[in-house]
Amino acid sequence: MALLGCGVVGSQVVRLLHEQADDLAARIGAPLELAGVAVRRLGRKRDGDVDPALLTTDAEGLVARDDIDIVVEVIGGIEPARTLILSALRGGKSVVTANKALLAEDGATVHGAAKLHGTDLYYEASVAGAIPLLRPLRESLAGDRVHRVLGIVNGTTNYILDKMDSTGASFVDALEEAQALGYAEADPTADVEGFDAAAKAAILAGLAFHSRVTAADVHREGITEITATDVASAKAMGYVIKLLAICARSDDGRSVGVRVHPAMIPRGHPLAGVREAYNAVFVEAESGGQLMFYGKGAGGAPTASAVLGDLVAVARNRLAGTHGPQESTYADLRVHPMGETVTRCHVSLDVDDKPGVLARVADMFAKQDVSIQTVRQEGRGLDAQLVLVTHRATDAALSATIEGLRELDIVRGVPSVMRVEGEDNTP
Amino acid sequence: MALLGCGVVGSQVVRLLHEQADDLAARIGAPLELAGVAVRRLGRKRDGDVDPALLTTDAEGLVARDDIDIVVEVIGGIEPARTLILSALRGGKSVVTANKALLAEDGATVHGAAKLHGTDLYYEASVAGAIPLLRPLRESLAGDRVHRVLGIVNGTTNYILDKMDSTGASFVDALEEAQALGYAEADPTADVEGFDAAAKAAILAGLAFHSRVTAADVHREGITEITATDVASAKAMGYVIKLLAICARSDDGRSVGVRVHPAMIPRGHPLAGVREAYNAVFVEAESGGQLMFYGKGAGGAPTASAVLGDLVAVARNRLAGTHGPQESTYADLRVHPMGETVTRCHVSLDVDDKPGVLARVADMFAKQDVSIQTVRQEGRGLDAQLVLVTHRATDAALSATIEGLRELDIVRGVPSVMRVEGEDNTP
Repeated sequence: MALLGCGVVGSQVVRLLHEQADDLAARIGAPLELAGVAVRRLGRKRDGDVDPALLTTDAEGLVARDDIDIVVEVIGGIEPARTLILSALRGGKSVVTANKALLAEDGATVHGAAKLHGTDLYYEASVAGAIPLLRPLRESLAGDRVHRVLGIVNGTTNYILDKMDSTGASFVDALEEAQALGYAEADPTADVEGFDAAAKAAILAGLAFHSRVTAADVHREGITEITATDVASAKAMGYVIKLLAICARSDDGRSVGVRVHPAMIPRGHPLAGVREAYNAVFVEAESGGQLMFYGKGAGGAPTASAVLGDLVAVARNRLAGTHGPQESTYADLRVHPMGETVTRCHVSLDVDDKPGVLARVADMFAKQDVSIQTVRQEGRGLDAQLVLVTHRATDAALSATIEGLRELDIVRGVPSVMRVEGEDNTP
Repeated sequence: MALLGCGVVGSQVVRLLHEQADDLAARIGAPLELAGVAVRRLGRKRDGDVDPALLTTDAEGLVARDDIDIVVEVIGGIEPARTLILSALRGGKSVVTANKALLAEDGATVHGAAKLHGTDLYYEASVAGAIPLLRPLRESLAGDRVHRVLGIVNGTTNYILDKMDSTGASFVDALEEAQALGYAEADPTADVEGFDAAAKAAILAGLAFHSRVTAADVHREGITEITATDVASAKAMGYVIKLLAICARSDDGRSVGVRVHPAMIPRGHPLAGVREAYNAVFVEAESGGQLMFYGKGAGGAPTASAVLGDLVAVARNRLAGTHGPQESTYADLRVHPMGETVTRCHVSLDVDDKPGVLARVADMFAKQDVSIQTVRQEGRGLDAQLVLVTHRATDAALSATIEGLRELDIVRGVPSVMRVEGEDNTP
């Protein structure tokens, strides 16, 4: 086997291949031999005990070697990872990858190559680290009908939101703390703008609904606009703000919505208790009911654990002369735009404190067929604020309502709009 | 395929085979055809839409038919299930079973037959219903080193203990409520005495530690002795009592302990929040860290979901001319007796209220090398009670300490002894 990339995850893979060599051999039925490690630069100091003789900068040459039958890709990003993976698959080699970006952006190409060449492409490590999630969706739930996948799949943003919730910190201060502790990168864009979670949501939706879903299909909002005030008022009302990835079948079952955005969830909901950088994902299946998977969603060792699990599987398959299940997209469900998604909304309005204001606000919701679940007035006079929570409505109707409210002369401002999740069908 | 048994689970399997026929065919690559259903008696009214023409009382004849390549066994119990499964495996047929009792009592025989005849034996439904747990242990964590599996794997006893905790009910009253709601059977022995959980613990331990573990290896205590007072005093101290299944590697890694018993866990522990008949299992792996799996652990539809997931897998394997991973017992770890298990203990003692009592009690702990973490005196005079919580010690030392305490003249009684779990390495 060959390893492409030897950073945080790769060096842990090398360490575990050494430390657990006997166990891995016993579980597979043959030893795993690491024949080469492709890196960008030689001579760099690396964690773990990577034999310098195995290192090469010629990744393409390594993948092409005749004595390589399994390729593990932990470089990340689109190129050169895609070219190397395709080259491996075309050569009939099995591939294990942790590359969520590639699978979410161009899964069709890599899955297509695996299918065409009858070889394995395993990628458990691409979503939620060591938490077994893709294999359960792909195999354990293969006899069930998944309705919804809802969860926290990005540890960095969960750490930031958890700190904001527990200490009252601002987004910027919480981000700095996360960076100091190594939970967030120097350029945190991929995490805080929701790109990482959106890639994972695309992968989960594709598996759950047997359809092809790409990152471009995912409605994405990050957490950079969340203020300490948002967090505090959510807290005061018994909610906590989490960045959720939600993949859900429409009510008629004919399309799916896939989205990543911050949402308020009740403090009693199991996802509200997911602290620090942990991940947790709910899967709601027709027969199986509510299932939850929880654990460390990132980090070198947990991700390496998932890589090694896949490595054992593809190695067993090779020995048996077979391969695992291929990509399943037969259902080919349409991914509907965010406007068609049915959700609920929490809105705070700064309003004039005079008779008739509530009637005019309520009328604006009624015009869009959005019904109001609760409304509360806070403050008096110049500080008057209306806090409303709606019943379920399409996101388009909710957005149109908010737009209309902004234009009302009695509304001085709309300081907070946030979706509410986890109150219906709460496990 | 043939179905053996058509009760609560079997009738749901039949229903789902009908309702999801197109999806199952697309996921497998070929339709699943139900060719026969073996039942004990014809003419009985059954849930779901079982075609009467498929019913037969000749299970052995059905299994032997040439047109049957997959056998699903949901009869339960040792015989005739074992004979039928062995007959199917010897005929080269794939078997899917939900039979925890058989696997825990005589797994060696059935796994041996599957290995010898190179065919599949899948049994996800035998533990924790629809919660994907066996496949993650067997495959996803195949590249990791599991240290401990700890969880709630019996919904009936969790329902009873949850009611006792939330309403203050006695064991008998809570059991009656569980029976009225269908959560407990008329003869609740298998659940309340821990036999069901012990069978599941044996299966989990075997998979987690790549060793052969049988039900007879499992230390088992039920919940029938738990009183409303036990529950109330646990509650007063911030604990909740749960029936736990615990499979853990010893500190030196050379043996494993497998046990089922009620234990006090802190209310902040994630397992403390598992309500009603839900199941939840923690897996602690060296690289993967703490993982939790949560969902409905029993019931017709959730169990049928697990059966169908396995059915898709074995059908795919047959089409590909291969089979999944066989039983893995290479590590062959010794299962140590309960006395060697390291745990902690909560003890209440009715004592004489006079000087020197605490010194004599403390001395009894010291004699067995058990150190005390906290001690508290409650009441005065004739009502004086000492409540102690120990540090970690072997169960043998803890038992010897309790025996010694009972014999002290200053100790009038030992109203409560219970193990404490979940305070070290709490996720």
